[in-house]
Amino acid sequence: MLKIAPSILAADFAKLGEEIRSADASGADWIHIDVMDNHFVPNLSFGAPVIQSVRPATRLTFDVHLMTEKPETLFPAMMDAGADRLTVHAEACTHLHRTVHQIRELGLPAGVALNPHTPLSVLDYVLGDVDLILIMTVNPGFGGQSFISGMLPKIRELRGKLNALGRPDVDIQVDGGITDQTAPLVVEAGANVLVAGSYVFGSSDRRSAIASLRG
Amino acid sequence: MLKIAPSILAADFAKLGEEIRSADASGADWIHIDVMDNHFVPNLSFGAPVIQSVRPATRLTFDVHLMTEKPETLFPAMMDAGADRLTVHAEACTHLHRTVHQIRELGLPAGVALNPHTPLSVLDYVLGDVDLILIMTVNPGFGGQSFISGMLPKIRELRGKLNALGRPDVDIQVDGGITDQTAPLVVEAGANVLVAGSYVFGSSDRRSAIASLRG
Amino acid sequence: MLKIAPSILAADFAKLGEEIRSADASGADWIHIDVMDNHFVPNLSFGAPVIQSVRPATRLTFDVHLMTEKPETLFPAMMDAGADRLTVHAEACTHLHRTVHQIRELGLPAGVALNPHTPLSVLDYVLGDVDLILIMTVNPGFGGQSFISGMLPKIRELRGKLNALGRPDVDIQVDGGITDQTAPLVVEAGANVLVAGSYVFGSSDRRSAIASLRG
Amino acid sequence: MLKIAPSILAADFAKLGEEIRSADASGADWIHIDVMDNHFVPNLSFGAPVIQSVRPATRLTFDVHLMTEKPETLFPAMMDAGADRLTVHAEACTHLHRTVHQIRELGLPAGVALNPHTPLSVLDYVLGDVDLILIMTVNPGFGGQSFISGMLPKIRELRGKLNALGRPDVDIQVDGGITDQTAPLVVEAGANVLVAGSYVFGSSDRRSAIASLRG
Amino acid sequence: MLKIAPSILAADFAKLGEEIRSADASGADWIHIDVMDNHFVPNLSFGAPVIQSVRPATRLTFDVHLMTEKPETLFPAMMDAGADRLTVHAEACTHLHRTVHQIRELGLPAGVALNPHTPLSVLDYVLGDVDLILIMTVNPGFGGQSFISGMLPKIRELRGKLNALGRPDVDIQVDGGITDQTAPLVVEAGANVLVAGSYVFGSSDRRSAIASLRG
Amino acid sequence: MLKIAPSILAADFAKLGEEIRSADASGADWIHIDVMDNHFVPNLSFGAPVIQSVRPATRLTFDVHLMTEKPETLFPAMMDAGADRLTVHAEACTHLHRTVHQIRELGLPAGVALNPHTPLSVLDYVLGDVDLILIMTVNPGFGGQSFISGMLPKIRELRGKLNALGRPDVDIQVDGGITDQTAPLVVEAGANVLVAGSYVFGSSDRRSAIASLRG
Repeated sequence: MLKIAPSILAADFAKLGEEIRSADASGADWIHIDVMDNHFVPNLSFGAPVIQSVRPATRLTFDVHLMTEKPETLFPAMMDAGADRLTVHAEACTHLHRTVHQIRELGLPAGVALNPHTPLSVLDYVLGDVDLILIMTVNPGFGGQSFISGMLPKIRELRGKLNALGRPDVDIQVDGGITDQTAPLVVEAGANVLVAGSYVFGSSDRRSAIASLRG
Repeated sequence: MLKIAPSILAADFAKLGEEIRSADASGADWIHIDVMDNHFVPNLSFGAPVIQSVRPATRLTFDVHLMTEKPETLFPAMMDAGADRLTVHAEACTHLHRTVHQIRELGLPAGVALNPHTPLSVLDYVLGDVDLILIMTVNPGFGGQSFISGMLPKIRELRGKLNALGRPDVDIQVDGGITDQTAPLVVEAGANVLVAGSYVFGSSDRRSAIASLRG
Repeated sequence: MLKIAPSILAADFAKLGEEIRSADASGADWIHIDVMDNHFVPNLSFGAPVIQSVRPATRLTFDVHLMTEKPETLFPAMMDAGADRLTVHAEACTHLHRTVHQIRELGLPAGVALNPHTPLSVLDYVLGDVDLILIMTVNPGFGGQSFISGMLPKIRELRGKLNALGRPDVDIQVDGGITDQTAPLVVEAGANVLVAGSYVFGSSDRRSAIASLRG
Repeated sequence: MLKIAPSILAADFAKLGEEIRSADASGADWIHIDVMDNHFVPNLSFGAPVIQSVRPATRLTFDVHLMTEKPETLFPAMMDAGADRLTVHAEACTHLHRTVHQIRELGLPAGVALNPHTPLSVLDYVLGDVDLILIMTVNPGFGGQSFISGMLPKIRELRGKLNALGRPDVDIQVDGGITDQTAPLVVEAGANVLVAGSYVFGSSDRRSAIASLRG
Repeated sequence: MLKIAPSILAADFAKLGEEIRSADASGADWIHIDVMDNHFVPNLSFGAPVIQSVRPATRLTFDVHLMTEKPETLFPAMMDAGADRLTVHAEACTHLHRTVHQIRELGLPAGVALNPHTPLSVLDYVLGDVDLILIMTVNPGFGGQSFISGMLPKIRELRGKLNALGRPDVDIQVDGGITDQTAPLVVEAGANVLVAGSYVFGSSDRRSAIASLRG
Repeated sequence: MLKIAPSILAADFAKLGEEIRSADASGADWIHIDVMDNHFVPNLSFGAPVIQSVRPATRLTFDVHLMTEKPETLFPAMMDAGADRLTVHAEACTHLHRTVHQIRELGLPAGVALNPHTPLSVLDYVLGDVDLILIMTVNPGFGGQSFISGMLPKIRELRGKLNALGRPDVDIQVDGGITDQTAPLVVEAGANVLVAGSYVFGSSDRRSAIASLRG
């Protein structure tokens, strides 16, 4: 059931189509797409024009993570570009319940991402409305960080809440510092979708890298 | 003296390195790089991670056009990614004189871009400090627009001002709807750096497309 | 003890004085007044000039719900216009404790509204300072929504907290999708002030409509 | 050719339909509609829900003046509500040329309003694209101000520019402190659309009031 | 173990160096420095230029409390000015975990301040990363307020959480309305660093004033 | 007629009262007070609490220069603190005409400051309403800059405009890099109020320093 979602932020953008085909051929389940706007996070990555260009490269799910303010303004462009799922940050949404349902009305599964410090209580009244929760295990948009082990109890508590709610089907995704060392820890805690960037794209053997994350 | 700067916003991002090499081989002078943040303009294009990946593809000048709020926050990342020139929007800079000099202190030529409606008077006391003025001939970040012919007198007036100032060396760049039909008009008016997107990258014969812009 | 507060957002603004008199004559307890600024919510409804005009139409309590950013900037105008109560959104107030007390220092009962996803924990240290909590049962400012039944446990939990605090007198108001079908549910859960818009003003028999909400 | 546009901001909102019919019967040419959002100006007036309610009251042109930030976000609601013309503030539009053309693409005449201090140079490259220029003769959104006579040379200069451009057909509208004393002054200077608020709606003889503005 | 931190906001800025020496000589443990930017709070106090001038006046710890938006933009200036500790507001930090670690990477102890209404749940996943929690016992930046006794259970609950986490070493600081009357209450509840402004600087016998806070 | 206004930003804040008395005794005409908020400029200097403390130190005019966003929010505090004049930045005021008149309604002379790049055209319709124009000769809020000689023609042009308007009485103030070398240049160009910071406060003989600025 474990899904591996390589993040193309760590790929070579000179040949992004090829990189995505390589991830596909190496056993990736989803392609994770990190959209940053230099406002919600201090970095600007890429947006719809890039996504649209590489859409033909694979049939894998395009799992779009919007690290942006006012993420709903990007929904139409993301749909046109070929997004299959959309995840927004709780910290960026004054009307989170509405934003989640806007995604679903577009026919897509809806995710909510939480920054490392953000408490799970922000999900108290929206947990039954989402398809995926993304627990950030580094701070998004900042470079040179390592896995925050303090997120393990957060994942565990979230999985417990979902089980208590009768929603074991909701995905728990993790993003940040995922390697063969940290993957078993987050999976044990309850995560079932793992984002990995340089661990996959920086590896000389991507197939083995992805396989190693499955434990 | 005329320089042609194909904009990679119209390229195929699945194989961007190859696209840039193609532009280089087809006679491009500069590579124009449109950075959009979904705040200054209603679109998010791409930023430093993409630029850095394709930097090895060519020795041509990377001419970076920052269609963003607070452009100075991106300067360090743009330098690291390999930018050779930086252009900021007058409408985004409360301290335009300072921002222009920040670019120059980084050792790069400094450009200032003006939206179509923006009057030339915003340059009254900064014209002697810049290396390039970019006259937008469409509204940046919006799709499906065509060349605004009302910009021709603006280019002409600007060239006159630069000549009167004893600064014929300052580049006048135009961006938006440039084709073999509009290129002679803007050149006649005084522009000497032409940005072209789909006219070049959408052409089956890019060499001829670029050549046709030279008149 | 149940109060019915018809929202004039659903009234006919061509004859708003008459509409309010009609609501008064039909048994309304309060007049609910939805102020939207197109920034906190994606809609602009009306403000002080409208409220002031209709103030003479009734002696009923004007229950003003500020769906705006920086609501405190509107307090003086709302006082002058004849507001009897003021409710602000927790999501719009960095200094919520202060804002609540600013309302009270004006001599008015103070309310705090929560968007559907907002957790009750935002009230942890302000519950003893308020006169009313408004639980939104739709997302404010967006059209075409129906009652969110997931808010029932939220109301119930809030009533439990108020009782535990020894504050059974604090009003719990609900707003969104209230009809004779949903009214008994929210009342059973602990609400005692019901906002109703089109259910009242869209009815051919407003007296019966209001009565039906009392169960 | 002179048009009189009573501003409903000064009308009685308790019976707004009747007020508009009264203005219509008293000889008004347009109904001027002041939309304020408490962000661009320090006041919140009213928006689409009010406009829509009174649309059936008259066939007169609904001349909507958006004193708001991000006015383009309100265009769809204003269209649905029955606006016949849209005017935006130059100070609120980073992409003024685009915003003007968005209005025209909706099939409506486009206006641009200038605050009292705003120089005419902001119109240098958009004058050929607009149908109306609104010269504010008080500061919008602040109460208790009187006609700023320093705006007369501004009107005169603008009319001169329009004539020089071969666009005598562009309307020059004035708003703020217009009475039978100031009307002849602004008309002499070149204005041809006069907004009047309390001078019309506060008069016991609205027909005479409107007539007196025609000089 | 109890530390007293006089706030220089209540000192005489005409002779601030002398005021600080007086506080030092009177038994102060830390000097509390309230930086306000008129955006996060409705007041502008002072910043790095003032701090730097008075740095030579004492060897006491400069305990800097940033009541500002985007506090991280001030870190370099605060370091240069001689800050020994930095405290940021949870309400001002979208990336609180990152901001706390930025402080620590500068080699300084990191604090997080909470406005009176802010729930402790915002600390759920960052409590193990901080050196100090500041519980505001008045609303920061507003004048004329008195000690909010409702903060006592908040302090008590926080101390309990820290003990449960095995972190009794984390400081709990209080700021607002601290006198010899309120000091024993907050200490009993679990606070161990007391900020006092006018109680110390407004006293004719500062030594006794500080001593009286120690109980 | 030439006035010298030492800027206390360059004074020793450990003994600011003494510094101001020294400036007074050394022949200063006004005390220039630079208020920065870390939003309009990238620095936070000081605000009302500091100004109020040093008000008793001198009878000289307190000439307050608000390098802040939303300067009008600070007017009441500045009045209470003892400001004698208020200058706001044109770039910070959407309603500049109104803001200038708000200052005058407080009974104070009103100034407008222009950043180095800001064109004089922003004053086209407000020049008759102000008492002082401040031409910045460095970029405000950034360190380590020197006098921008390109501002000399700007001063000259402004003086010409004021003369043409019949307003030779309006002060032209300059701020940034003023020394005995640059003072004669700006005076010759038309300035009559000179702000000097480190040139005065950094001098061992402040009387001579001030005198040297008078030429």
